[in-house]
Amino acid sequence: MREQADFAKNVLAFLSHLDEDEAGPDLHQAAMRLGMPLKDLIVLSRNENPYGPSPAVGAALQEGPFHRYPDSRPFLEALAGYTGFSPEWLVAGAGMDEIISTICRIFLGRGDRALIPVPTYNYYALAAGLCGARPEYQTRAESFALHPHLPGLKMVFLCSPNNPTGEVLSEDSVRSVLEETDAIVFLDEAYIEFAGKSLAGLVREYQNLVVGRTLSKAFGLAGMRLGYAIAPPWIAEQYRRVAPMFSISSPSLAAGTAALADLEWMKECVRRIVSERERMREKLPCALPSRANFLFLKTRHKSKALAEQLLCRGIIVRDCSSFHGCGERCLRVTVGRREENDSFLEALEILDGKKD
Amino acid sequence: MREQADFAKNVLAFLSHLDEDEAGPDLHQAAMRLGMPLKDLIVLSRNENPYGPSPAVGAALQEGPFHRYPDSRPFLEALAGYTGFSPEWLVAGAGMDEIISTICRIFLGRGDRALIPVPTYNYYALAAGLCGARPEYQTRAESFALHPHLPGLKMVFLCSPNNPTGEVLSEDSVRSVLEETDAIVFLDEAYIEFAGKSLAGLVREYQNLVVGRTLSKAFGLAGMRLGYAIAPPWIAEQYRRVAPMFSISSPSLAAGTAALADLEWMKECVRRIVSERERMREKLPCALPSRANFLFLKTRHKSKALAEQLLCRGIIVRDCSSFHGCGERCLRVTVGRREENDSFLEALEILDGKKD
Repeated sequence: MREQADFAKNVLAFLSHLDEDEAGPDLHQAAMRLGMPLKDLIVLSRNENPYGPSPAVGAALQEGPFHRYPDSRPFLEALAGYTGFSPEWLVAGAGMDEIISTICRIFLGRGDRALIPVPTYNYYALAAGLCGARPEYQTRAESFALHPHLPGLKMVFLCSPNNPTGEVLSEDSVRSVLEETDAIVFLDEAYIEFAGKSLAGLVREYQNLVVGRTLSKAFGLAGMRLGYAIAPPWIAEQYRRVAPMFSISSPSLAAGTAALADLEWMKECVRRIVSERERMREKLPCALPSRANFLFLKTRHKSKALAEQLLCRGIIVRDCSSFHGCGERCLRVTVGRREENDSFLEALEILDGKKD
Repeated sequence: MREQADFAKNVLAFLSHLDEDEAGPDLHQAAMRLGMPLKDLIVLSRNENPYGPSPAVGAALQEGPFHRYPDSRPFLEALAGYTGFSPEWLVAGAGMDEIISTICRIFLGRGDRALIPVPTYNYYALAAGLCGARPEYQTRAESFALHPHLPGLKMVFLCSPNNPTGEVLSEDSVRSVLEETDAIVFLDEAYIEFAGKSLAGLVREYQNLVVGRTLSKAFGLAGMRLGYAIAPPWIAEQYRRVAPMFSISSPSLAAGTAALADLEWMKECVRRIVSERERMREKLPCALPSRANFLFLKTRHKSKALAEQLLCRGIIVRDCSSFHGCGERCLRVTVGRREENDSFLEALEILDGKKD
């Protein structure tokens, strides 16, 4: 009988260099360790909307039939209404990660390079690496002067508001990247509803721009896995050839359609979250200005230890040391409900504050 | 301003050779053409379970919270109970297609080869092609004598019961493929509940076997996108590194867990479908014996025209001419509800039968 080692040589060699994907602490394990029910944890590590989706979503979930393959048409039409782009400019996927992964599969092959200004969302490097491409990290400069002239450069990843730092890119800086490079530019606007002005309109001007979006954040549907992209029709067409035909479930499509029909709910969530964000920031001199639903903090002590101490108090935040280019003294904390935020502020003051 | 053509050269060259994915006639367009509501179509083209999922699924869909990222643990535990394999042998994905696509991304790179006995499910070739690999088609012989010694052969795709022909592979023939090749063998058991005996137990014996499964068929959850695989732990571990972290939505996970807790419903659906399948086959001398929830028919007239004529009567079946190796005179028809099957039988007799 042949052993594992006889077959393990079939695994693509470049996969051995990949980082593990991770989304902060495992909540189930944290609850077990603390001996408390999972629902009693204060989870500020995943940039979720604490108010949840529009109440219309609950009713939409009963729309069947669930034994038939899904039909994404109504959801794409709802997206057209929300974005102002007709369906030929739109593609949908099971969360932003499927959008990123699919775009990479169109443009990145073995040996290609992807420019990634860091610190930023880790999945860009992982998705590029899964295609055998090499991430080229570049530190985000104050002026955001990218130099996108690397040989073999096929994609550039921009994120605005940026995860985990929270700042937005100016229209001028994005235009300048688009004009200077022959690569495809992926602009991740997962958090755009918290920031105000989107740059998606530039997709009509630039044939090399794809803007990624999600319903996981402002729309409160992280559990539904609903991402989408606004892309020039020629890229959208390639996307539809490469993407799985049915990746979003029928209830998720119904939930997304219902959520997009109740923009007032989303806007009210955004108002409350932005107001809480600013209240928190006033109390946190160590926080950078943020246009997203989270704050990025420079900590006095090592962030890994601090996150661990917060976890022991049932408060889950994101230690940023796993973000390439972040160093060891940064935390990302999601803006939660007022009482959750107060618990966090109080705990942080004790652990990292003047009292030590 | 640069044009599309300036950037289109960035698309990976091997993608231009890919076939389009397709799942039979577009139901929305068919309903429009016929001027009838979509729900009045008799849809026998997608191998869905016409009785739908367990009634327990409806209730499970209200389980939130939907604004939190999904937790697949309870679903994997339910799968462990159903399959008899502990979670380290199990992975889940957004439908069988995500399972197939992810396994390909572990083992297939540009220039590799994947052996595909045809006719069979088209997505194997597409998923392999998306990795830059070349499908090697081989006609399914009566004796199923594969010759898996091609240079560069990294994967073999088997399907049992086979889509679209409906026959099962013997344990001996699968063992012989596993023993003769150094490639990874993917055995697709999407329809296994209709056939009886699964070969998944072989995963404990062979380090190069992955068995794919789905809840889309017998469990009536095609709209939920729930696939899974039983794999040796070393492959399952690679899978978890390569797969998206959150691709299955919370309602789908809850639906799958509920469906797996009501096996009696699934078994009753299978009994009814198998009984209908055998009743239909007695009336269809042109049908091959089938162990799945569909029948494969050899038609007197060209299948494309016949499927079109059935469509004009509101009956949607699958013309098999898009299946590699099927030729132009094969139809696949899903076993529907009794009255749907009768409508099909009556229409077929008129269109392809003695009366012409």
